[in-house]
Amino acid sequence: MRAARLHEYTDEMHDALSIDDVPRPEADGPDDVVVEIEGAGWCQTDNHVIEGMWTEYVPQELPLTLGHENAGIVAEIGENVETVEEGQPVICHPVRTCGVCRPCRLGEDMYCENVAFPGLTHDGGFAEYLLTNERAVIPLEEAIDPTDIAPHADAGITAYHAVKKAVADLNPGDTAVVIGVGGLGHIGIQCLDAMSAADIVALDIKPEARELADELGAQETLDPNTEDVPAEIEAFTDGTGAQQILDFVGADGTTALGPDIGAAGADLHVVGYGGHVHEPAQTLVDGEFGYRGTLVGRYAELQELVALVERGEVELHTTRYDLDEINTVAEKLEHGEIEGRAVIEP
Amino acid sequence: MRAARLHEYTDEMHDALSIDDVPRPEADGPDDVVVEIEGAGWCQTDNHVIEGMWTEYVPQELPLTLGHENAGIVAEIGENVETVEEGQPVICHPVRTCGVCRPCRLGEDMYCENVAFPGLTHDGGFAEYLLTNERAVIPLEEAIDPTDIAPHADAGITAYHAVKKAVADLNPGDTAVVIGVGGLGHIGIQCLDAMSAADIVALDIKPEARELADELGAQETLDPNTEDVPAEIEAFTDGTGAQQILDFVGADGTTALGPDIGAAGADLHVVGYGGHVHEPAQTLVDGEFGYRGTLVGRYAELQELVALVERGEVELHTTRYDLDEINTVAEKLEHGEIEGRAVIEP
Amino acid sequence: MRAARLHEYTDEMHDALSIDDVPRPEADGPDDVVVEIEGAGWCQTDNHVIEGMWTEYVPQELPLTLGHENAGIVAEIGENVETVEEGQPVICHPVRTCGVCRPCRLGEDMYCENVAFPGLTHDGGFAEYLLTNERAVIPLEEAIDPTDIAPHADAGITAYHAVKKAVADLNPGDTAVVIGVGGLGHIGIQCLDAMSAADIVALDIKPEARELADELGAQETLDPNTEDVPAEIEAFTDGTGAQQILDFVGADGTTALGPDIGAAGADLHVVGYGGHVHEPAQTLVDGEFGYRGTLVGRYAELQELVALVERGEVELHTTRYDLDEINTVAEKLEHGEIEGRAVIEP
Amino acid sequence: MRAARLHEYTDEMHDALSIDDVPRPEADGPDDVVVEIEGAGWCQTDNHVIEGMWTEYVPQELPLTLGHENAGIVAEIGENVETVEEGQPVICHPVRTCGVCRPCRLGEDMYCENVAFPGLTHDGGFAEYLLTNERAVIPLEEAIDPTDIAPHADAGITAYHAVKKAVADLNPGDTAVVIGVGGLGHIGIQCLDAMSAADIVALDIKPEARELADELGAQETLDPNTEDVPAEIEAFTDGTGAQQILDFVGADGTTALGPDIGAAGADLHVVGYGGHVHEPAQTLVDGEFGYRGTLVGRYAELQELVALVERGEVELHTTRYDLDEINTVAEKLEHGEIEGRAVIEP
Repeated sequence: MRAARLHEYTDEMHDALSIDDVPRPEADGPDDVVVEIEGAGWCQTDNHVIEGMWTEYVPQELPLTLGHENAGIVAEIGENVETVEEGQPVICHPVRTCGVCRPCRLGEDMYCENVAFPGLTHDGGFAEYLLTNERAVIPLEEAIDPTDIAPHADAGITAYHAVKKAVADLNPGDTAVVIGVGGLGHIGIQCLDAMSAADIVALDIKPEARELADELGAQETLDPNTEDVPAEIEAFTDGTGAQQILDFVGADGTTALGPDIGAAGADLHVVGYGGHVHEPAQTLVDGEFGYRGTLVGRYAELQELVALVERGEVELHTTRYDLDEINTVAEKLEHGEIEGRAVIEP
Repeated sequence: MRAARLHEYTDEMHDALSIDDVPRPEADGPDDVVVEIEGAGWCQTDNHVIEGMWTEYVPQELPLTLGHENAGIVAEIGENVETVEEGQPVICHPVRTCGVCRPCRLGEDMYCENVAFPGLTHDGGFAEYLLTNERAVIPLEEAIDPTDIAPHADAGITAYHAVKKAVADLNPGDTAVVIGVGGLGHIGIQCLDAMSAADIVALDIKPEARELADELGAQETLDPNTEDVPAEIEAFTDGTGAQQILDFVGADGTTALGPDIGAAGADLHVVGYGGHVHEPAQTLVDGEFGYRGTLVGRYAELQELVALVERGEVELHTTRYDLDEINTVAEKLEHGEIEGRAVIEP
Repeated sequence: MRAARLHEYTDEMHDALSIDDVPRPEADGPDDVVVEIEGAGWCQTDNHVIEGMWTEYVPQELPLTLGHENAGIVAEIGENVETVEEGQPVICHPVRTCGVCRPCRLGEDMYCENVAFPGLTHDGGFAEYLLTNERAVIPLEEAIDPTDIAPHADAGITAYHAVKKAVADLNPGDTAVVIGVGGLGHIGIQCLDAMSAADIVALDIKPEARELADELGAQETLDPNTEDVPAEIEAFTDGTGAQQILDFVGADGTTALGPDIGAAGADLHVVGYGGHVHEPAQTLVDGEFGYRGTLVGRYAELQELVALVERGEVELHTTRYDLDEINTVAEKLEHGEIEGRAVIEP
Repeated sequence: MRAARLHEYTDEMHDALSIDDVPRPEADGPDDVVVEIEGAGWCQTDNHVIEGMWTEYVPQELPLTLGHENAGIVAEIGENVETVEEGQPVICHPVRTCGVCRPCRLGEDMYCENVAFPGLTHDGGFAEYLLTNERAVIPLEEAIDPTDIAPHADAGITAYHAVKKAVADLNPGDTAVVIGVGGLGHIGIQCLDAMSAADIVALDIKPEARELADELGAQETLDPNTEDVPAEIEAFTDGTGAQQILDFVGADGTTALGPDIGAAGADLHVVGYGGHVHEPAQTLVDGEFGYRGTLVGRYAELQELVALVERGEVELHTTRYDLDEINTVAEKLEHGEIEGRAVIEP
């Protein structure tokens, strides 16, 4: 089968992956599931993998098929698999987990001690077929096209997970700030709107992104390039500040905004991760401010996000590309030229 | 009355405060309470105030009487005060709050929109008498000497507050790391021991501090100068890492330890605040790691800490000094030469 | 001034209260606030007070002016009051609290150890003027008519409080059941819709009530008189059951429904209170089922509900009556003939 | 192998089970684990099963080998099992779960949609060998004798689970009431003591039980037969009442105590289950009181309890019996003549 593979780390996106011919995976293990990929979303993390940014965080061997936002049709199942059958449309939670370690028993899929992360540590979904397991697949209703929903497998669940943590501390009358209305941010706004009655202020330097935020439920949008964000947030919140901040960019400049726009006791959820967190400890103490990293989300949270999609509460803005166009997608994202989310159709 | 006052910001601790003669405060307002100070704890924050580190965080006018860890005997009350009377021994919550703003209504005293912080924004307790209000005083049992308990008014409640946040995420079998076994840390260890069944690993470069930690309930102590802390924590936790970290130092080097010793999903609570938090955003994302500032604690939490003291669960290690020795105390703390907590007796 | 007062307990609603001429209250205490009543909602609890059902729960002396859902214009303030001034439109939290007892310090207004409950323990708002205090009043935006919003002071906040507790355990894809779409239930549905993405199933024997539920956001409505509720809920939830149940009726038959329609771990929030909870302990154990009483709500929660109203998320269905019609209202409610909420305009 | 089996429901405990010769189970499935039983605790629930009390709650076919508190040595494993091997001492979580349904994914083992409950729905551990699966076994340290720890598999985890829910709402200075200091209650007291700094008041009609409570950490013990429990609790708590109540008896009279001794907002956790909950809805409303059923506990919670045991925080009081004595044990428990917990050694 055809697969888009990384052979060496590079900053040259236009030439990053090659389309190889590799053997189709098979469902040899009793819990294995092979999925015929209908859509696989392209993620900023794919760019980071290509650049080698993940080598010190996870075990990674090249060549590697990228792609961790996968949805498709079940093609083959292991002998013990009971929750799906061949022909079933599914979305794939991004990791394969063991189900018996303590984190798995607590429901903390992302902390599984025996985790495999297709697209980061094992071959991923920019290919005709993907090997995953029963604990990673969620059946989809007939009405939902796997290609449309694929980016929820990572972009969606990551945004949802961060929002769910924020919502626990958001009351009606409170304000949530969303930094960056791209592939994740535009989902985050919709989740916030569906799951809380907080006011949403969205920040983005691109006018189209701010317009989108506006349509999706933001009460206010700001352009950080031309507006005094702390002053605007202070005015919007009558001097209190924002109770929760979702930073889908994660640049030095966006994390630094946190304490300037946060209410006492506020958190900035670090979702995007190009830059640094850098603050005097005293700043965190004075405002009882928190920087909280957020790593994808749980299997059960992907079920909840799929429920939101089925209720019509969350729409994805996607553009479709052929497998052959994959390096073009990589380059476009690097230059911020993708609106919503790019989905590869292998 | 005599009061130890700061007239200008300085790094010279030996000459920082002067003993002035100032008028005794009076309980003019209906909710006012004047307390005759029996003991007032000296805090690292007093050094930071002297150095001018708080001028950009709170309004502050010099000259100022320092001292925010106060206990004593009620000397005079306003006409509406009902919960204490003259002659009643009390410990003072560090801030005077309004009781009607939204944070006050939520129980979040430290976020009060009309807060006064004696010792930081108003005259404090390094004096014969202190002006505070009904919402700041907690009656003490006969058996408890106000001088012994004074440091709980800030050091104690700050340690308790941080521990209470940590305990919410600590299960039996989990590990909590305490960085710095000084004035706050030695209280933190006892609170952890009383309120959870987590294992405690205490870090300090001073052998006496590690011995104290050992006596107070730590399962393990480490010297960061001579031991490989991440390796030791990894071994102690069978590879999982520590679920919660309490950083009572807050130096560049201690905050940086966090992600190296934390389990997936761990938090480092920033309590001490000399240095910075500086990490790649990706580090927070990869381990779903959080840096969470912690600011003193609530009035109700000081009630809870007093209950712990009355149960005999938390002992303070204090040394007493006269008001005239106050600059000596300032200098000794600067050089790390105070064991436990210094208490001034005006 | 004129006031509707209860002189003796009775089951005869048509003759329950008499319109007396009594002295106008004055703002003698430093925190007192006198409100000129624009609207005062009639509540099922008023009927229960008239019947004497509250005598064993709270201290109550007759004659008593009823009315605990009050809104109006500030007429006079005590010398220390700072958050409102004369002429300010306000809604009144139902209880006057002390602000210094431990429950108050925790934000638990309803548990105040020195509470006064106008309309239950002190004279209430079915009168031209009401005496309350600064801690009970919430300023209203110009755009909001106090008469329209008055029932939120108790019906609204009670529904909101119950919903807020339920929402903490409701994920997207979960189901919440609302029993009784009357004065409280129709607010509860709107709060659920605004604050969660759970599906709502509303039960009521009256077709108009079910229609209203439908308009306000319920995904499904059922008539308990003609439909097999447990079977319908089982089908609606694919066999899982409802995660949270809000019982705004509180009759023997409605509380008994709980374990039959609840998912494992579900709660039934007891809001209405005419009948009993009666179940084998084993039933609670087997389904890990909970019956959780709910008592009005906190001051901060009324602020949150007002924020929902200002956002346009919650509309009240009210009918206005003169003070002279008050016994007619009492009787109509007893017979279930009031749609939405009756508001008295003194 | 020999197994103690129930052939028909009966109230005659002295003749309830017969010792049959049945085939030894085998590890045919890939996740199966066969455990050679070293100890199997006898539980009040075994009496209830014999009486037929569980037939309307779970599917149950006779004859059935009872016994759901099991520990022993792994005798055989299925081909995919990786976390234990033959010869490994283990304690068995009481249920076999699927690991793929939504409750399992949330960590809610007891709510598993495909659950098997050996001793209630399948053959249990009053036999030489037990069939369970990988998701049910927890390895034990060498130092721990499986026979000593067996009752933790159900009595222990049930007490722990209830305590863990209670502890989330217990602050230092608060009071927890434990009703019934038998097999579960004596574990509950130790867990409360280890995991919180609340005061513990223990109720039991037997003097030996109250003495045991005293030794295990209760601050106060009461005899409900001779003392006025509500008055004593009111005095002990200075009029506030108990914040959390753990009812390990679950009789009509014990559940009825709840609202009389509970503080505002208190919960009574229903653990024992012979009787009923019966209260006016108004009583739950007035005190914001909750009755919360509690069903065994999660696998991860049994891990936490084992950690408590390994720390020396929880000791079990057990007496050992041969398999042939099993009906004697049944009868003794029925008459309240077992101190601590009886363990069968097959």
